[in-house]
Amino acid sequence: MLPDVQLSKPDVEIGLSRVGARGIRKLVQVRREGKRPVILIASFDVYVDLPSTRKGVNLSRNFEAVDEVIENLVRDPIENMEDLNIRIVDELLERHEYATKAEVFMKAEYILRKRTPSSNQQTQEVIRIFSEAEKWRGGESKIYIGVEVHGITACPCAQELVKAYSAKRLEEIGLDADQISEIMKSIPLATHNQRGRSFVKVEVRENFRPRVEELIEVAKSGMSYEIYEILKREDELEVVMKAHFNPRFVEDAVRLMAKRAVEMFSSAPDDTRIYFRQINEESIHQHDVIAERVATMGELRDELS
Amino acid sequence: MLPDVQLSKPDVEIGLSRVGARGIRKLVQVRREGKRPVILIASFDVYVDLPSTRKGVNLSRNFEAVDEVIENLVRDPIENMEDLNIRIVDELLERHEYATKAEVFMKAEYILRKRTPSSNQQTQEVIRIFSEAEKWRGGESKIYIGVEVHGITACPCAQELVKAYSAKRLEEIGLDADQISEIMKSIPLATHNQRGRSFVKVEVRENFRPRVEELIEVAKSGMSYEIYEILKREDELEVVMKAHFNPRFVEDAVRLMAKRAVEMFSSAPDDTRIYFRQINEESIHQHDVIAERVATMGELRDELS
Amino acid sequence: MLPDVQLSKPDVEIGLSRVGARGIRKLVQVRREGKRPVILIASFDVYVDLPSTRKGVNLSRNFEAVDEVIENLVRDPIENMEDLNIRIVDELLERHEYATKAEVFMKAEYILRKRTPSSNQQTQEVIRIFSEAEKWRGGESKIYIGVEVHGITACPCAQELVKAYSAKRLEEIGLDADQISEIMKSIPLATHNQRGRSFVKVEVRENFRPRVEELIEVAKSGMSYEIYEILKREDELEVVMKAHFNPRFVEDAVRLMAKRAVEMFSSAPDDTRIYFRQINEESIHQHDVIAERVATMGELRDELS
Amino acid sequence: MLPDVQLSKPDVEIGLSRVGARGIRKLVQVRREGKRPVILIASFDVYVDLPSTRKGVNLSRNFEAVDEVIENLVRDPIENMEDLNIRIVDELLERHEYATKAEVFMKAEYILRKRTPSSNQQTQEVIRIFSEAEKWRGGESKIYIGVEVHGITACPCAQELVKAYSAKRLEEIGLDADQISEIMKSIPLATHNQRGRSFVKVEVRENFRPRVEELIEVAKSGMSYEIYEILKREDELEVVMKAHFNPRFVEDAVRLMAKRAVEMFSSAPDDTRIYFRQINEESIHQHDVIAERVATMGELRDELS
Repeated sequence: MLPDVQLSKPDVEIGLSRVGARGIRKLVQVRREGKRPVILIASFDVYVDLPSTRKGVNLSRNFEAVDEVIENLVRDPIENMEDLNIRIVDELLERHEYATKAEVFMKAEYILRKRTPSSNQQTQEVIRIFSEAEKWRGGESKIYIGVEVHGITACPCAQELVKAYSAKRLEEIGLDADQISEIMKSIPLATHNQRGRSFVKVEVRENFRPRVEELIEVAKSGMSYEIYEILKREDELEVVMKAHFNPRFVEDAVRLMAKRAVEMFSSAPDDTRIYFRQINEESIHQHDVIAERVATMGELRDELS
Repeated sequence: MLPDVQLSKPDVEIGLSRVGARGIRKLVQVRREGKRPVILIASFDVYVDLPSTRKGVNLSRNFEAVDEVIENLVRDPIENMEDLNIRIVDELLERHEYATKAEVFMKAEYILRKRTPSSNQQTQEVIRIFSEAEKWRGGESKIYIGVEVHGITACPCAQELVKAYSAKRLEEIGLDADQISEIMKSIPLATHNQRGRSFVKVEVRENFRPRVEELIEVAKSGMSYEIYEILKREDELEVVMKAHFNPRFVEDAVRLMAKRAVEMFSSAPDDTRIYFRQINEESIHQHDVIAERVATMGELRDELS
Repeated sequence: MLPDVQLSKPDVEIGLSRVGARGIRKLVQVRREGKRPVILIASFDVYVDLPSTRKGVNLSRNFEAVDEVIENLVRDPIENMEDLNIRIVDELLERHEYATKAEVFMKAEYILRKRTPSSNQQTQEVIRIFSEAEKWRGGESKIYIGVEVHGITACPCAQELVKAYSAKRLEEIGLDADQISEIMKSIPLATHNQRGRSFVKVEVRENFRPRVEELIEVAKSGMSYEIYEILKREDELEVVMKAHFNPRFVEDAVRLMAKRAVEMFSSAPDDTRIYFRQINEESIHQHDVIAERVATMGELRDELS
Repeated sequence: MLPDVQLSKPDVEIGLSRVGARGIRKLVQVRREGKRPVILIASFDVYVDLPSTRKGVNLSRNFEAVDEVIENLVRDPIENMEDLNIRIVDELLERHEYATKAEVFMKAEYILRKRTPSSNQQTQEVIRIFSEAEKWRGGESKIYIGVEVHGITACPCAQELVKAYSAKRLEEIGLDADQISEIMKSIPLATHNQRGRSFVKVEVRENFRPRVEELIEVAKSGMSYEIYEILKREDELEVVMKAHFNPRFVEDAVRLMAKRAVEMFSSAPDDTRIYFRQINEESIHQHDVIAERVATMGELRDELS
């Protein structure tokens, strides 16, 4: 019989908040009614807590828990990322009988097909998706799903500066106030613009099951416009025009995501937690600019009413 | 007069938890009494919150706040990382009159000189240091400092398995129980071992000012042994021997750090928050293994008494 | 009609070696006879050269070339990574009529199923695969495929030091020379060991089509032993034992890969290029250690004969 | 006497192209006449080759070589990065008597002070600097220095599309051809713009010693405009205006760098190798766009004459 060191009493009897493994890569298939299944290479971080009386966690059980759930997807398919992770935390609690809590953090890249705005050509988009589940033995659980999308943001501040400059130049050329005002509304003036990343993460509740597609829509609502891998010239014009008639700060992006979430997630209970983040990879700086909001749906509803 | 879009009212009147910039790189000199100053290339993330009534933050003020504090170090030197960041949050609150809270997160690499364990040759070690400060206008503040160090961890579980196997082999060779027991104590048996990373972060309080050197000592107390950039053969033997006579799980590493912190930080108030993390880059797996503990000093004292 | 700036003459008439896009992510399915298809999330970098007389490349054609080839895989499946990339460079040359050369660099992660060495439990392994194709208009082409695998390497130098130390200790305990020699052969002595990465890349020739499975075998031949995501105790003992009875430097790993490649790739022409690299994430240092060999198959055959 | 495994004969007698360590971090001070010294946290990769007859390299000698050179800088200061690396390869060849070749690759971040374009406020810029040295025993050596800078690039293609659109709109508003032409020249029209990275690397020759400042000037000559960490509103207007009156593809950036290098490096021998690369982190795509040119100074001179 091989010795089992993990079972012994530790020298220092202190409990641990979290013991586990990170970066477990798995191929996951999510079946969707009437569509072809989504295939993801996902990465899992899985943890349990550890009482002060036990030296170590049997970490191979973490892998077995993830494996068993994923293998079973073939005969018992899931339709949501969060269901996968709920099953994993259940398996973790079953296998680690000494643990009072289990957690899983999953991230994956999801390749979405879409069409360009003007030439209607088929192209694609890489979306990052996230899902977390945390469960206490015999009790409460917390589940989140989230997405991060890329888009373009055009700066409203620099555009106002360019407008003020341009109005003065047009006056010098001899145009009158009405003409200048008309021109300002008609043609897109320069500003700096950049690749932005919009992240939204929301708690999943018993009677509130947001879909990934809804989160993508919320995330995209914050930026000046969408971006595309293929852009024909007419598409490129469309993206640049739309983005420049719709300039937005990181602050605007977060606020607009929050507004859209309130509209979209009307069935979410007031105490549902939600988190928004916008990161702009500024074209005029070496650093990135960020805005965030952490709130409950109830708080957002109050602020918007 | 140039237009100032940030001042205007936003379309969506929602407050923001955090607006700022991340990845501001600065050269920082920390003066130390009787020693040559420490030079760091530090990276700062700086944030303020934003009320629902104001469209945007004047981000250039974040840079000016960081710059002003760092420029002033020449005539008004600091002796601690945390003092630098306290000054920065004070400047942020001064410059962003609409903010109720300011935050700064600093990280840097610090090159420590040290000597090899056996040949006593001079070598070096790269330590990651962290410092955070969070301050509410006219009120409370929270300050943390932390370090991350590299070391070697040897696995106790695999070593026990190898011992059981070896004892059986020695029996077959014809040795008696006393001889076998003596051999087991005398020679270092194989196990897998790996590069580990130990992280500890602790709250700085009015009457509790832990030094970076103390945090490094706490962090190093968890692993099987230290590692070195230069190792002569006698040093390499020493590191391997010591590590193998001192095998430790990630769980052990966190517990030993917690124990050392309780001994080292006896003057810390009971409600001082502290955080430990051990990451092992396992040599027998593709994934990393992690243990964590989040606690107050009072909780740790209770568990250890 | 929209203007087409790319077509115009550049201000500075200098030719460019390479213009293109990097980081194009695609889902790829490789069909295999009698097995389930391999699914990869691949990342492509695609380039063409540009004559001095033309201002710009129409980059959307790069995406269309990649897309067209990948879409066609459904009705015209491939069995090798390299065929995919040969098709892509052909499409690139077709679409960029001004280019004399096209290049594609593909990388992907491939999840391999395997069984643990002792308990025979199912587990998996993430393999990085690489494929490059470079083609001149109406002429020569160069095609490579490569893999990178993880494994464990145990250091022979530290183990010899431990052996010398242990022999002396056993002598002190009162064992004789024969007993000591027998013990040294029977039980695995400590040394430092670490996660290693073995990379091999070989040119694909008209009559020499190495398979990914063969490259994986070559890559794995260099290390002390394989690693696994799941290891039961008997497996963990097996991995540690085998690795410690098979200690290897980065230098050994590269040489053993070269030897195995010469055995495995007997049909490769003498002028076939091949490249080997071993990286060890040293457990006793903060830095990594590397060995490389760049050669033709003919050179390796000469050195080994 | 401790055993020395490296000295023994390898099982597989194949020579190795490169054996060494990567990621050795060091604090380096470069003295400059009449200015304060430049302080860098540099990272070194150091290699030697290995004959087929020797099992291993004594890697601690690599560190000692780097250490000795850097320690000696205090009493024997250098004025150029390349001198540091020439000394390191000399030390490597001295210490590894079996090697025929030594190589070092250094990279560092250099924090440059500069002033904003309009408000003249002090700010900074992080420049990446590179230096390589390769030396054969008793013979030839190859030395390179390089820099990478960040800047903004505005797309000429999208701007022409916006111009064509805008001209049509202005016509509809009732402006005449002269007015439209005047407006197009006077006000900056929208286009997508992004953070770009310009890289240039050039061979250092006996009679041609390019300075880092010159390389920075060449690298910056390719982009639409410089970027800054602090920008007051008048500066932000200036950056956006200048960038939009100066739109450039990645192709243009490389060509303009090549042209400036030919002007700047008139003393470089014709066979001096030089390499240019521009990477744009496109604001309208998820992928990056790249252009490169590899040439000798003589080839560039021919193409430009």
